[in-house]
Amino acid sequence: MEKADLLRTVEWKNNAVIMIDQTKLPNELVLVTYTDYNQIASAIRNLVVRGAPAIGVSGAFGLALAALQSNAGTKEELIGDLEAAKKTLFETRPTAVNLAWGLEQIMNVAKKGTTVSQIKNSIIDTAKQMADDDIKINMTMGKNGSVLFDDKDTIMTHCNAGALATVAYGTALGVIRATRESGKNIKVIATETRPVQQGSRLTAFELKHDGIDVSLIPDTAVGYTMANGLVNKVVVGADRILRTGHVFNKIGTYQVALLAKQHGIPFYIAAPLSTFDLKSNPQDVVIEQRNASEVTQVGDRKTAPDGINVINPAFDMTPPELISGIITEAGVARPPYEESIKKLFQANK
Amino acid sequence: MEKADLLRTVEWKNNAVIMIDQTKLPNELVLVTYTDYNQIASAIRNLVVRGAPAIGVSGAFGLALAALQSNAGTKEELIGDLEAAKKTLFETRPTAVNLAWGLEQIMNVAKKGTTVSQIKNSIIDTAKQMADDDIKINMTMGKNGSVLFDDKDTIMTHCNAGALATVAYGTALGVIRATRESGKNIKVIATETRPVQQGSRLTAFELKHDGIDVSLIPDTAVGYTMANGLVNKVVVGADRILRTGHVFNKIGTYQVALLAKQHGIPFYIAAPLSTFDLKSNPQDVVIEQRNASEVTQVGDRKTAPDGINVINPAFDMTPPELISGIITEAGVARPPYEESIKKLFQANK
Repeated sequence: MEKADLLRTVEWKNNAVIMIDQTKLPNELVLVTYTDYNQIASAIRNLVVRGAPAIGVSGAFGLALAALQSNAGTKEELIGDLEAAKKTLFETRPTAVNLAWGLEQIMNVAKKGTTVSQIKNSIIDTAKQMADDDIKINMTMGKNGSVLFDDKDTIMTHCNAGALATVAYGTALGVIRATRESGKNIKVIATETRPVQQGSRLTAFELKHDGIDVSLIPDTAVGYTMANGLVNKVVVGADRILRTGHVFNKIGTYQVALLAKQHGIPFYIAAPLSTFDLKSNPQDVVIEQRNASEVTQVGDRKTAPDGINVINPAFDMTPPELISGIITEAGVARPPYEESIKKLFQANK
Repeated sequence: MEKADLLRTVEWKNNAVIMIDQTKLPNELVLVTYTDYNQIASAIRNLVVRGAPAIGVSGAFGLALAALQSNAGTKEELIGDLEAAKKTLFETRPTAVNLAWGLEQIMNVAKKGTTVSQIKNSIIDTAKQMADDDIKINMTMGKNGSVLFDDKDTIMTHCNAGALATVAYGTALGVIRATRESGKNIKVIATETRPVQQGSRLTAFELKHDGIDVSLIPDTAVGYTMANGLVNKVVVGADRILRTGHVFNKIGTYQVALLAKQHGIPFYIAAPLSTFDLKSNPQDVVIEQRNASEVTQVGDRKTAPDGINVINPAFDMTPPELISGIITEAGVARPPYEESIKKLFQANK
C-alpha cells in the first residue's frame, strides 16, 4: 500500500494541521486545515478527532501551531505562550491520558531548548515524530498479528480500533490491513456498536475506503453469525489491559468474546504496550457511565419514551480465559498472561 | 388492575375498531378509529398494528366491519362481499399465519350462518370473542409464570412480547404484569433490540405506562449488566417453538440466553400453545433476512456508508439447554422438553 492511500486521521503539512472531520462520517470524507491552536482545541472538544492515540498527537500538533503563532522574543516568553496554549488544549478532554502525555512531551522539548527559533523547530520535529511513531507501532503490531489469520478468513471486529482512532492504520484494523497486505484474501464482519455506532459509522467506512469486503451486522446478530459458521476469528482493540490479562474495551466486547469461546472461534486483542496498566487490579477500574441520550435517541431522533432509567456503561471487562492472544508491537502474548505480558515488557526494554 | 387501565392494542367499540397507532410510539399515544375494512388493511400494511396475535384479531375485526358495510340482501351476496374483503385484508401480510387463521375463523362462522342479520351478529360476536380469548390466554400464562419470579427481582426482557404485540396484556410482559399484580415488587431491564428498536420504542413505553420501573440498555450491555449482578431472571416471548424445545425468537435472544447461562441466571420463554410447531426440525426453519436499511439507518438518518454488505436476520434460534422453562396457558414446561411439551398438549385437549 502506498503511503498516499493511507486514511490519515491527523497530519502536519506546510505548517498546518490537516484532519479528517469525523463528525461528517460516514456521509462525507471532509479534510479540515487548522493553523491556530484554538481550532485544534475546538476540534478535540467537538469530536472532529477522537480516539486516545489520535488525540495525543493532535495535542502535540496544537502546541506546534502555538509555537509558530508566538511572537515571543525570548525563550521565557515562548514557554509562557506554550503554557497558555497547553492549558486550553488540556481542558478540552481532561481525563484523556494520551492528551496529557502528548502535551507533556512537547513541553519537555521546549524547556530543554536554547533559542526561540531552535525551540520552534524541535517542537515541530518532535510532534511529527510522535505521529510517525504511532503509525510505525501500528504497522509492527499489524505484522505481528497477521500470522494469526488465514487466507479466506472472515474476521469479526467490534467498535472502531482503526485508522480513525489513531494517526493512521489502526490497531485491530491495522492487523486486518496487514493480513490483507500479506496477500491473504479476507472478509470482515463489523458490529454496529450501539449506542455511538462506531462500527457502522467508522469501521465500515474505513474498510470500504480500503477496498476490504465488509458486512455490517446489528449487535444482536453476533450469536447468529457465529452459530451459523459465518465467523472464523475475532480481533478488537483495547482501552486498558491489566497485568492479569483482563481487558477493558468498548461495551459489548465481553459478550462477543463469550460467544466466540462458545463456538470455538479464536478471540484476539490488538493494542500497543502504552495501553497496559500493570498496576491496577480488575476491581479497581471504574467504568464510566455515559449520557442516557446516547441510548434514548439517534442523532436528533427520539427512540424511547421520556422518564425511564438508562444504564449506559462505556466499557466492559473481558476476562483472560476468553482471550486467545494479545497482539502488541513487541509480539503476541499468550495465556497464562501474567507471565507472557511480563516477558513482552522485559523484551521491549 | 381495572380493565380501563389496560393498554389495549385493538378493540371493538360501538361498531368501530379502535387501535393504538404504533407508528407514533414512543412519542405519542394516539388512538385511531376505523369503520371501513379498507382502513384496517392499510393499518396492517403500514404497521399501525403489528405482532402476530394482534394482527390475527385485527383481520377478524376487519371482516366484521365489512359485514356491517355490506348492503347484501341474501346470505350468498354477503359471503361474496366478505370474500372480497378477506382478499384485501389477507394480501396486506400474506406470510403472517395468524392473519390467515383469524380471517378463516370468521369465514367459517359466516358460512354456517342462516340469515344476513344473524350472520352479521355472529361475525361481530366471534371477532370480539377472539379478542377476549387472546387476553384471557395471556392472563392465564401470566399467572402460571408469576410463581417463577420473586419479590425484588430485576427481570431482563428482549424485544416486545407485550400488550402491543397482542390484543392486550402480552406474553413475556404479561408474566411481568402478573408478577407485579401478585404483590411482588419487581424491576425490569429492557434491551433496545436493534435494528427495529422494539425494546426502547414499545417495551419501555408499555412498562412506563403501567408504572413498572424500567431501565433501558443498549444490546451491547447485556453482558455487563449480568456480570455486575444487575439481573436476577430473564423472560422473553417466542415466534416459533419446536417439539424439541428449540425456540425461534427476535434476533439477539440466543446471545441473551447464553450470557444468562454463563451467569447462572434463569432464562424463561413465555408463549401461547398456538406458537408451537410440533412438526418441524430445527434445520427446517428458514430465518428471513430483512432490509439492509434497517441496519444502515435509523429513521431517515443514515448511520453507515453506502455500498457495504449487511446481514440482518429477523430471528435466531435458542437451543433447549439454555432455557430454564417455557411458560404457557396450559402450564410451565421444564427440561427435558420433548416430554414436557407433549404433556402440555395432552393436558390441554
